[in-house]
Amino acid sequence: MRSEHDFLGEMTVPDNVLYGVQTMRAVDNFQITEQKLDTDFITSMAKVKKAAALANMSTGRLDKKIGTAITQAADEIIAGKHLAEFPVDPIQGGAGTSINMNMNEVLANRALELIGEPKGAYDIISPNNHVNMAQSTNDVFPTSIKICIRLKTRRLMTALGQMASELDHKAIEFKDVLKMGRTHLQDAVPITLGQEMGAYASAVRRGIKRIELAAENTAAVNMGATAVGTGLNAQPLYISKVVKYLSEITGEKYFTADNLIDATNNVDVLADVSGAMKVTALVLIKIANDFRLMASGPRCGFNEIQLPARQPGSSAMPGKVNPVIAEVLDQTCYQIIGNDLAVSLAAENGQFELNVMEPVMAFNILNSMRYMTNAVNTFYEKLLLHVKANKVQCEDWLDKSVGIVTALLPHIGYENSSQLAKEAYQSNRPVKELLKEKGWLTDERIQQILTPEKMTHPGITG
Amino acid sequence: MRSEHDFLGEMTVPDNVLYGVQTMRAVDNFQITEQKLDTDFITSMAKVKKAAALANMSTGRLDKKIGTAITQAADEIIAGKHLAEFPVDPIQGGAGTSINMNMNEVLANRALELIGEPKGAYDIISPNNHVNMAQSTNDVFPTSIKICIRLKTRRLMTALGQMASELDHKAIEFKDVLKMGRTHLQDAVPITLGQEMGAYASAVRRGIKRIELAAENTAAVNMGATAVGTGLNAQPLYISKVVKYLSEITGEKYFTADNLIDATNNVDVLADVSGAMKVTALVLIKIANDFRLMASGPRCGFNEIQLPARQPGSSAMPGKVNPVIAEVLDQTCYQIIGNDLAVSLAAENGQFELNVMEPVMAFNILNSMRYMTNAVNTFYEKLLLHVKANKVQCEDWLDKSVGIVTALLPHIGYENSSQLAKEAYQSNRPVKELLKEKGWLTDERIQQILTPEKMTHPGITG
Amino acid sequence: MRSEHDFLGEMTVPDNVLYGVQTMRAVDNFQITEQKLDTDFITSMAKVKKAAALANMSTGRLDKKIGTAITQAADEIIAGKHLAEFPVDPIQGGAGTSINMNMNEVLANRALELIGEPKGAYDIISPNNHVNMAQSTNDVFPTSIKICIRLKTRRLMTALGQMASELDHKAIEFKDVLKMGRTHLQDAVPITLGQEMGAYASAVRRGIKRIELAAENTAAVNMGATAVGTGLNAQPLYISKVVKYLSEITGEKYFTADNLIDATNNVDVLADVSGAMKVTALVLIKIANDFRLMASGPRCGFNEIQLPARQPGSSAMPGKVNPVIAEVLDQTCYQIIGNDLAVSLAAENGQFELNVMEPVMAFNILNSMRYMTNAVNTFYEKLLLHVKANKVQCEDWLDKSVGIVTALLPHIGYENSSQLAKEAYQSNRPVKELLKEKGWLTDERIQQILTPEKMTHPGITG
Amino acid sequence: MRSEHDFLGEMTVPDNVLYGVQTMRAVDNFQITEQKLDTDFITSMAKVKKAAALANMSTGRLDKKIGTAITQAADEIIAGKHLAEFPVDPIQGGAGTSINMNMNEVLANRALELIGEPKGAYDIISPNNHVNMAQSTNDVFPTSIKICIRLKTRRLMTALGQMASELDHKAIEFKDVLKMGRTHLQDAVPITLGQEMGAYASAVRRGIKRIELAAENTAAVNMGATAVGTGLNAQPLYISKVVKYLSEITGEKYFTADNLIDATNNVDVLADVSGAMKVTALVLIKIANDFRLMASGPRCGFNEIQLPARQPGSSAMPGKVNPVIAEVLDQTCYQIIGNDLAVSLAAENGQFELNVMEPVMAFNILNSMRYMTNAVNTFYEKLLLHVKANKVQCEDWLDKSVGIVTALLPHIGYENSSQLAKEAYQSNRPVKELLKEKGWLTDERIQQILTPEKMTHPGITG
Repeated sequence: MRSEHDFLGEMTVPDNVLYGVQTMRAVDNFQITEQKLDTDFITSMAKVKKAAALANMSTGRLDKKIGTAITQAADEIIAGKHLAEFPVDPIQGGAGTSINMNMNEVLANRALELIGEPKGAYDIISPNNHVNMAQSTNDVFPTSIKICIRLKTRRLMTALGQMASELDHKAIEFKDVLKMGRTHLQDAVPITLGQEMGAYASAVRRGIKRIELAAENTAAVNMGATAVGTGLNAQPLYISKVVKYLSEITGEKYFTADNLIDATNNVDVLADVSGAMKVTALVLIKIANDFRLMASGPRCGFNEIQLPARQPGSSAMPGKVNPVIAEVLDQTCYQIIGNDLAVSLAAENGQFELNVMEPVMAFNILNSMRYMTNAVNTFYEKLLLHVKANKVQCEDWLDKSVGIVTALLPHIGYENSSQLAKEAYQSNRPVKELLKEKGWLTDERIQQILTPEKMTHPGITG
Repeated sequence: MRSEHDFLGEMTVPDNVLYGVQTMRAVDNFQITEQKLDTDFITSMAKVKKAAALANMSTGRLDKKIGTAITQAADEIIAGKHLAEFPVDPIQGGAGTSINMNMNEVLANRALELIGEPKGAYDIISPNNHVNMAQSTNDVFPTSIKICIRLKTRRLMTALGQMASELDHKAIEFKDVLKMGRTHLQDAVPITLGQEMGAYASAVRRGIKRIELAAENTAAVNMGATAVGTGLNAQPLYISKVVKYLSEITGEKYFTADNLIDATNNVDVLADVSGAMKVTALVLIKIANDFRLMASGPRCGFNEIQLPARQPGSSAMPGKVNPVIAEVLDQTCYQIIGNDLAVSLAAENGQFELNVMEPVMAFNILNSMRYMTNAVNTFYEKLLLHVKANKVQCEDWLDKSVGIVTALLPHIGYENSSQLAKEAYQSNRPVKELLKEKGWLTDERIQQILTPEKMTHPGITG
Repeated sequence: MRSEHDFLGEMTVPDNVLYGVQTMRAVDNFQITEQKLDTDFITSMAKVKKAAALANMSTGRLDKKIGTAITQAADEIIAGKHLAEFPVDPIQGGAGTSINMNMNEVLANRALELIGEPKGAYDIISPNNHVNMAQSTNDVFPTSIKICIRLKTRRLMTALGQMASELDHKAIEFKDVLKMGRTHLQDAVPITLGQEMGAYASAVRRGIKRIELAAENTAAVNMGATAVGTGLNAQPLYISKVVKYLSEITGEKYFTADNLIDATNNVDVLADVSGAMKVTALVLIKIANDFRLMASGPRCGFNEIQLPARQPGSSAMPGKVNPVIAEVLDQTCYQIIGNDLAVSLAAENGQFELNVMEPVMAFNILNSMRYMTNAVNTFYEKLLLHVKANKVQCEDWLDKSVGIVTALLPHIGYENSSQLAKEAYQSNRPVKELLKEKGWLTDERIQQILTPEKMTHPGITG
Repeated sequence: MRSEHDFLGEMTVPDNVLYGVQTMRAVDNFQITEQKLDTDFITSMAKVKKAAALANMSTGRLDKKIGTAITQAADEIIAGKHLAEFPVDPIQGGAGTSINMNMNEVLANRALELIGEPKGAYDIISPNNHVNMAQSTNDVFPTSIKICIRLKTRRLMTALGQMASELDHKAIEFKDVLKMGRTHLQDAVPITLGQEMGAYASAVRRGIKRIELAAENTAAVNMGATAVGTGLNAQPLYISKVVKYLSEITGEKYFTADNLIDATNNVDVLADVSGAMKVTALVLIKIANDFRLMASGPRCGFNEIQLPARQPGSSAMPGKVNPVIAEVLDQTCYQIIGNDLAVSLAAENGQFELNVMEPVMAFNILNSMRYMTNAVNTFYEKLLLHVKANKVQCEDWLDKSVGIVTALLPHIGYENSSQLAKEAYQSNRPVKELLKEKGWLTDERIQQILTPEKMTHPGITG
């Protein structure tokens, strides 16, 4: 055990840990979720700390030896080491100060080790004076969130992109599967299963664009803003250098926000990322639900597609197979929408120079990104790749349908078409047969108009 | 035109209106929704004013002549007169002060008229000193909301009660309509359409109980709390009298909240009413969606029930009929859930002795109550009363189903049953036929076990 | 009274109205909100109908005489006439069919009048065959929503732009008002009131950009998609012409969506507009709340700014003035956030070829746009233009503060600075005085470092 | 490694684990949250399994030896053993089937071990035929959620109860701390800090009642409903026995729901529990925010109370102490409100005989219960117990205030009082002094009326 102190007093710290007194206070203060910090977040914050150390060395304010030790320690974390040294709860008071101090302490102690000094020798390397030099939680924490968002965005984009591509494949694979289009869950006019898949692909791609666009705004960071955005204790040279180093370390372009005070006070850029995921979740729910509906049955439902059997569907009903993968996508999306509300509530509750509710925002945004990536990958791998069309069933429905009367509209008018539909429903007879009886159109013309294939691509054929 | 003043200065007021200077300021300040106050709310507030005037007369503080004129004026509003005299926007700053002053001014001016004095002669009857005597917006406004909630609750209870009763009728009407039960939208085991209707009825009745329970808590009012709950300027006798009169006037029991400061600071009782409607809306959505699914088709869907045709379903597709009544119930419920979030956000944002966001809470709760009442009545009258079962189709599905193997579980075990189901799906052959081939059970036993009627009431038959 | 019929049967229609049988059915079916359609929405839909008529004439399918009468009738509506002819409830089942048919009937009947024929002579001009030619509710309704959104977006952008500009003016006006910056509602380090105003301006401008970006996506419309997106009954030439005419009529660029099926099935583009308003509402709430906090007091609060007195603040507390304009902005924003949830719930609930919940989406999005425009204009005109800084009070707070020790960090380190702060709090003595006693820095240096003006612009001065 | 199979085929299972093939499929299928099942939930489900086994033995259907082994195995889990054997993700498709089968497999294998048989010998003890006898996921899973809710409710009630009691202590401790009451964040009339604490206590107690009431409804369980609520394969005797055993095992009263179909289809009872937490969260946010406001400063804010210093508040600002405990309560409440939305979305999306979204509901409700319990305990232990009143500061504010003119209302009227307030603000002079100059009241009367102590308890003194 070693002894450490801060301005609230002294505490003993287990000697084998890299974190220190302030981390211990935080662990004692915040035991809410019993969960761990997101791993990507820890490495993202280490990148910020490394960039700050390099910038502070380049202004000459940070001693080279100390700075080098700090960057080395940061590199170790970036490489995935020391992750167990971050015990603070993701939902915490203090606007992320505990996370920042946890990182500052781990880096200080590891840097001390690297230069052969004992842990806790903060007079040599101090978590506050050296590691946190020219920084504040109020710039480091939101910047780290942004870096982590961009990292996770790449993975999410890959997942959504893969899903969209496979939907495009299915659009081709199913392009000749004619089926009844439905609006209001009621029979409408013919469409192909391929057209439906293509529409899903198109909507998913809009989701990709939406999230990318929102995530791009996280490139503007407030490093150098320090406590309230005025940049107190941060030199101009440092401010310009730190984003340069950050861009180098992460391989992505970062720049200093135009208005550092705004960038410190406001968190709407984070709320935008969450909001973009929310709207994309709405789209994914619709897709998942359509798959569930199309797979309904198999004997007493639509039965238009066949989903892969992933697991026995029921502990009580033998032989039952359920659309579990589509269901888990739905549920994940509900979670993401709920998380977005938590983010919104936090975003609304900033005051003056800071929004102290950032930890719960980070918790929810990063969770949502991870969940959505996982659920979309699951949907792709375990459902979409293996989905089959029940072509015969699709055509069987179509043959029985009445909705095809719509194609007669330009030829016999709305009233006659309505009358025909009504008769077909009441007599339970096929539309073509009834139409022939009427003698309004020649058989050849009827055949031309009432071909479902043509109805699905009238722009091309007609 | 007459001239009126308040401590901000002088204004001219059209001489034909009963409201005064503060109402005019409010109309100028708040032009947000361009909507009117809820009519029930205006009459509810008039009841509060009447009760206060009676209580103030009974303590001797309010002159009988003045008090009598005020109560007469209030009676006119309660009877539905002067409703056009309330031009203030329902969403307004000031925690309802503008609504309260609008009422105070209308009552003062009408009372002046009644005793033969000119409008605006506030030295004779003052909106603040006489009409608002021993009151504050901070007790009058929340109390008026509560009274209005209870009034609207009765109507909503009638609507939901009627819906539940009719569902119970349908439970009887459809008790012999055997159909395939579905879980995960996949064929499960037999059930009757009547059993489904009975379950809806049961869930709706829980909604009735939930809303009633939440609304009951509005019986505790904070009249006498005045500005911050300490009761400044309100005599103890007045406090006990005002709830007595309120109960008499409304015909419902009201009592003084145990802790007047709490009752003035906190609005969770209102949030509860909104929350109860939200949960009930979730139930109604499920019911509406089940009806939409069961009515899907008619040729290419479940087609288990037939909804009444209420209007041509499509401007483009002749003969189409859509489940528009179920759809409008869904949408109304989405609105109610959205409104509940607005209420929650307002409820969260009280500070110290008051939640100044009460106007937006009232706006949303009263809208939700009206909308839900209307939508439920619409569902009852225009859909539920006329819904028909497609018995033949229901039985047709059941005949084709495989899920009935579940009933074999206690007799041949999970593995054999699963195997049988698999074979039935793959061979597209009936379960009974396959089972007979296996020779595991006698034909008679098979007949006994695989009778759908029995499967739906095993507790009774088995 | 005249008699009209549709395929459900015959109805009598008052002869003086332009709407017809289907509108009457809709009015009977949907009595939910008791509100009217948004006026801008009606004119927007008339523009769509005009564009369709022109396009149908240009393909030769629509008779010139009939088409001209329809466009004339549409022009009258665009000019603000006949608005009372749209009695259908904004929340309605049927995916907007009732709104579309209401418009079709009004245009048909008015066109009939214009060519000297009696209302109801649908064999001459038919709501379905002529006015709705090559259209479906499923393309007309979402397109009309989009056009209305862009119209309202312009007004909202003006409102937000004016607010941002005035905040920029205040940034200049208050640039020398030094005050205590606050984080966690706790004293932090100095800032200027002007810097705070500039940060608000910056955040509002991001709101402008966010909403504009979302609204831009509404330029892709699905005219020509007809019922399910396949374009059945719409000629390719019509499809290309209709967006051309739409662009001409509205003065804004519209184009045909790349994937008409997607554009018919999915409503995420609408959800994006609502979401952009939601996030902007979060920013506005933060601003309104900061103004409320800064204006708190006047004797027992922050009292850093003075808001204009808009109305007596209390019916019970004489002389009280409340921040009613900031409060109404807050409440409006809560409503917008609640509305966004209603929109999300509707967006989630599409099935197959259509999202039938579009009416409630339109209702909420258009309401939110109008409410936000009104509330922002109110905030601008009735608060922002008149807000005054209490410079003396701001400086008084600053003089008493301890947070300025932060500026000492690079000079005496975190530990010493903390110690100094602690002593200052405990002894209730000024920081400078204590610091001089310590003898760590010369008086001149202390003076240089602890000048609040410098602390607020260290980048420039330091 | 051992080999197991289900009707989808064969899989190898590590021989040291108690779970089996279906658990392995589930782990492969669902990797969404990367979190573990709630421990209380696992033990709750084991209690359900034990009750079912006992009931099945009592009907004679389950062999005593097998049944006894199963109950022994369940007892081990109830005692906290084997918790690592539950690797399935809490967010999963299949309506909880994977959780149920995970439990069935663990119990079967552990029971096999207990009777000396090898794991996987499902012909001797089968997860489906024996452990799951007369059960379905569709009754076991919701029942287990309910039992877990009641268990966690007790802890939450203790936490909230402790908080309310301590607030009552503070009400007494601070009963003589006179302070300025505030409405609209503006000075209102005097109140005591004790009165405020008492109001918080009262609101928290309403939260206790609200959650208890909602949780009570979970006593109605659907054991015996089996797959769709019809009770297929469950004997009447079993149904009556299973709730009896459940009550014995848990020590709480459970009974069979009146309508088993309703109880299987609908999840509103769960949504109610979540909703009750949501409303209570709104109350807690208000309390936390009031504490943050009262503690604001310390030099440049209200500074009416002093919170315990829990950790250095800032990495950048030495000596700063922030209200971190109140902040974490706020954030936890945002999470709970967000979670409630996820629950609502799931609740809305049931179809026919089941709501398959129950897993995400359980995940959020149980998380919210744990989070709220933790956050409330944290607030109690780390803030509330140690909060101090700054009596001098409170009185200092009051001395400067003008709002006390309100007490003059019954004596000099609203107009005169308003005038007095206005003069006091403009002249910056004390109210009493100005009032004496007016000569409206005797000095003695002034003294009587303007005593703050009296203003806070007028009902008693006046």
